[in-house]
Amino acid sequence: MKIVIVGAVAGGASAAARARRLDEDADIVLIERGEAPSFANCGLPYYVGGVIETRDKLLVTPQQRLIDRYRLDVRTHTEALRIDSQAKTVFLRDLQKGNERSESYDKLILSPGASPLRPPIPGVDLPQVYTLRDLGDADRLSQAASQAEQAVVIGAGFIGLEMTENLVHRGIETTVVELADQVLPPWDAEMVSSVTEHLRSKGVKLELADAAESIVPVENRLLIQLRSGKQLLADLVVLSVGVRPENKLAVEAGLEVGQRGGIKVNDQMQTSDPDIYAVGDVIEVQHFVDGAPVQIPLGGPANRQGRLAADHIFGRSTRFRGTQGTAIVGVFDMTVAMTGLSEKSLRAGGIAFEKIYVHPSHHASYFPGAEQMSIKLLFALQDGKILGAQVVGRHGVDKRIDVFAVAIQAGMTVYDLEEMELAYAPQYGSAKDPVNMAGFVAAGVIKGDQPILHASDLTDGSNRFLLDVRSPKEYSTGHIPGAVNIPVDELRGRLSEIPRDCSVVTYCQVGQRGYLATRVLAQKGYQVANLSGGFTSYLAHAAASKSRDA
Amino acid sequence: MKIVIVGAVAGGASAAARARRLDEDADIVLIERGEAPSFANCGLPYYVGGVIETRDKLLVTPQQRLIDRYRLDVRTHTEALRIDSQAKTVFLRDLQKGNERSESYDKLILSPGASPLRPPIPGVDLPQVYTLRDLGDADRLSQAASQAEQAVVIGAGFIGLEMTENLVHRGIETTVVELADQVLPPWDAEMVSSVTEHLRSKGVKLELADAAESIVPVENRLLIQLRSGKQLLADLVVLSVGVRPENKLAVEAGLEVGQRGGIKVNDQMQTSDPDIYAVGDVIEVQHFVDGAPVQIPLGGPANRQGRLAADHIFGRSTRFRGTQGTAIVGVFDMTVAMTGLSEKSLRAGGIAFEKIYVHPSHHASYFPGAEQMSIKLLFALQDGKILGAQVVGRHGVDKRIDVFAVAIQAGMTVYDLEEMELAYAPQYGSAKDPVNMAGFVAAGVIKGDQPILHASDLTDGSNRFLLDVRSPKEYSTGHIPGAVNIPVDELRGRLSEIPRDCSVVTYCQVGQRGYLATRVLAQKGYQVANLSGGFTSYLAHAAASKSRDA
Repeated sequence: MKIVIVGAVAGGASAAARARRLDEDADIVLIERGEAPSFANCGLPYYVGGVIETRDKLLVTPQQRLIDRYRLDVRTHTEALRIDSQAKTVFLRDLQKGNERSESYDKLILSPGASPLRPPIPGVDLPQVYTLRDLGDADRLSQAASQAEQAVVIGAGFIGLEMTENLVHRGIETTVVELADQVLPPWDAEMVSSVTEHLRSKGVKLELADAAESIVPVENRLLIQLRSGKQLLADLVVLSVGVRPENKLAVEAGLEVGQRGGIKVNDQMQTSDPDIYAVGDVIEVQHFVDGAPVQIPLGGPANRQGRLAADHIFGRSTRFRGTQGTAIVGVFDMTVAMTGLSEKSLRAGGIAFEKIYVHPSHHASYFPGAEQMSIKLLFALQDGKILGAQVVGRHGVDKRIDVFAVAIQAGMTVYDLEEMELAYAPQYGSAKDPVNMAGFVAAGVIKGDQPILHASDLTDGSNRFLLDVRSPKEYSTGHIPGAVNIPVDELRGRLSEIPRDCSVVTYCQVGQRGYLATRVLAQKGYQVANLSGGFTSYLAHAAASKSRDA
Repeated sequence: MKIVIVGAVAGGASAAARARRLDEDADIVLIERGEAPSFANCGLPYYVGGVIETRDKLLVTPQQRLIDRYRLDVRTHTEALRIDSQAKTVFLRDLQKGNERSESYDKLILSPGASPLRPPIPGVDLPQVYTLRDLGDADRLSQAASQAEQAVVIGAGFIGLEMTENLVHRGIETTVVELADQVLPPWDAEMVSSVTEHLRSKGVKLELADAAESIVPVENRLLIQLRSGKQLLADLVVLSVGVRPENKLAVEAGLEVGQRGGIKVNDQMQTSDPDIYAVGDVIEVQHFVDGAPVQIPLGGPANRQGRLAADHIFGRSTRFRGTQGTAIVGVFDMTVAMTGLSEKSLRAGGIAFEKIYVHPSHHASYFPGAEQMSIKLLFALQDGKILGAQVVGRHGVDKRIDVFAVAIQAGMTVYDLEEMELAYAPQYGSAKDPVNMAGFVAAGVIKGDQPILHASDLTDGSNRFLLDVRSPKEYSTGHIPGAVNIPVDELRGRLSEIPRDCSVVTYCQVGQRGYLATRVLAQKGYQVANLSGGFTSYLAHAAASKSRDA
């Protein structure tokens, strides 16, 4: 058995190591265009920022170890030029020596990854305009950063914000330009308005709903002209506006690709040619929740796919169950995470859903250091099945998103969230964990115990009595325009102040007192709903709307 | 509807609040023997240690709020003396005024909790011998701690070790006496030998496999006489040797109790009298994994049970699905967690299982601050179903145990662990998360890819060739007696050094290189197994055995 693997990072390296474990005698050729196989691409921004101090750290499995330990035929600085799938041969060029050679294969695994997009604007190819994909990019950017005072990051996705944090960490004044009216476009806007605020508090300048139209060299610097008319000066520009699958080899070989260019594979990772597998950022996968084709360039799935491809080559029964889009990003002191589908992707897919918001403490509030987190849970109203979750906060975010990720994998419902027995001691969680809380609220909504309304519903022109059940002090520091304040503890004695001829919306700071008020009023015959997530969600929604309208 | 609830902490308070939300008009009487309802009993050790600085913090829901917000009839300093279940009446005594009165009920909920055990040894009732159950206990102990220089903690369970940490935090020289030959008896011994070491590194003295036989006042101090003959001097003693369900009221009312005293309830939390419910530490529950009756005094399940009891009273269909024993404890800089069944409980229950150990970094090892954690996974060999997990380490332990807890709740297998798509960025996890790693190893064992052996198997007298595949440097700093060193990278060229007439056991530091070596040798016709968890698990096992034999 001879296996040729094109691309030696996440997916390719995993496939190679797995293949060797399964077969001592296989010939395994690992082709890498760059200087090093198996480097930690997710660490590149932190290497640029100096958080990861030594370059060696990024070499997860050094080349010599792949050779000694896994007996791989590793060829770095080598590009795959062309596949002859009839002859089962791939043509390679040594980028250092310039010579070409062919390599036959029994099975070919494509793991070439995805390349950073370069928007077609004047100046995008100037030397001070960087993308970040491999070690060489990181070296160049790191070098440039050492002399820069101002930087512009174009694109506020994962990599864009990680780069922003790391540039600021190096003392560089950084402006982020983002086409969308929010940072982190995969998330729903109201969940990341707090991230926008946090970035600003760290001195980052944000230009949302704007785009670079040209980049012009001015003396030794760059002038970035925005669509809005604004002009930015910078010593360097980082482009992070997304990636495109490196599908050239596949397309030229006649392999099927999806609408957005990802190589199509079956659930054994086979392309339309069964002797050619593809894994990682170059492929199109099925979304686990709705089965829609998606491109999700993340390291976890890439590693798993590589492993599965090797398994299948050696006759193992395997099945890739799709990707559920679990993602996490640190933004200075905050963590932003999601799994499953967002509200915007549910809407785009025409999938019915309900949503709730909770804002609990990340651990027992009586224990020092408790920090508020925000959870948005998306679920099917009919059966409570969990469709997606987003969690944002300072601590304990990664834990809760992993719990939701497993719940989605298991096909669990919001009722299962109510029952979850998670580890509780005061420094780790609460007797009613944030995940349980989300389950309680969502289950209450489905059962009709807690009719809810969302901040976005308040502007639909309906005649409603807005009831703020917080304390007068909370009310006086800010409330929804038109709201009347009756603290929850006084509610039962002041029912006469609440009109019966229109529907009532209750709200408090995060939704808990509003829930009790809803229960009281519903049992007294009022038509009432609670504002999900309370004033906190209202403010988040308002901030997102403001950004949208700006 | 009139509901009387006896006991106003976790379970009782949850039942009361839930009942009010479900019915505005119910009469709800909440009886509490102590001074305050709804206090944070899990916070008491940290209040004693001064970590939680103000006593008010412990009053999760102050009495006046229960009255104002939930319209509860709260009676503190009140003891329930007797139940007349025929007359549906409970008899109460006001502990301050001394007078008695009766209270009728439609439904009675018992949530009296469990009381600390006091071993029957001379001196156990001396005033300087403390237990920790309520606010008054915490106040007294805190006061005593402020003048103490030396303390003895009897019992190295959760509370014992939390108290130890907090006494040390207050500058008190502390000795822990534990009957078992390990700390944290619910865990398997080899998983907590690192905790023993950690405690010692913090200056804690440990007397394992020993017991206090008497406590004698000597001037203003206490002399604790141990069974081993050792004598300890202390200013105060904390007893934390377990709890006993406060079942007196129930037993006298003729309600059924289990062998260990817990009130028997059905899955709607009803006792043998359908109008009397019981919740929390006083009841016996079914273990979720094997259905065996257990008493698991923890706050999470207590809260859930209280909620379910109220739901059932108001006609909701509910079902308590048992407790899976998810538990976590912080011990200085370490976190120790478990869910499901331990090896010792599986053995006691006669349940077939296999186990594996992994020792991965808690996040990407290339990102600064990565710390090793240890995971023990217990599963069924037949179908891979997860039976239990234990995780010990410094960071990220709570996250992984919650993932395992959900996996057990969902009835998942080790194959599902392989597939889990958990959130990965380098500061949070790895592309192959520790949970995935545990899944890979366990699945490999079931499929026969990776035959394993455990440290405990090495002493069975079989003739084996012990092969250490680490580097010569690692080998020279310590290895298993009799092991021969051939580094994995040299293995293929040195096969002739490995005998073919006996079975081979490979090992490395944590099991990964040993796994590859096993694959190499198996494919070359050797009968070979890998030592699960490698030299790290070997050392943990040896430390646990040494403690057992001491």
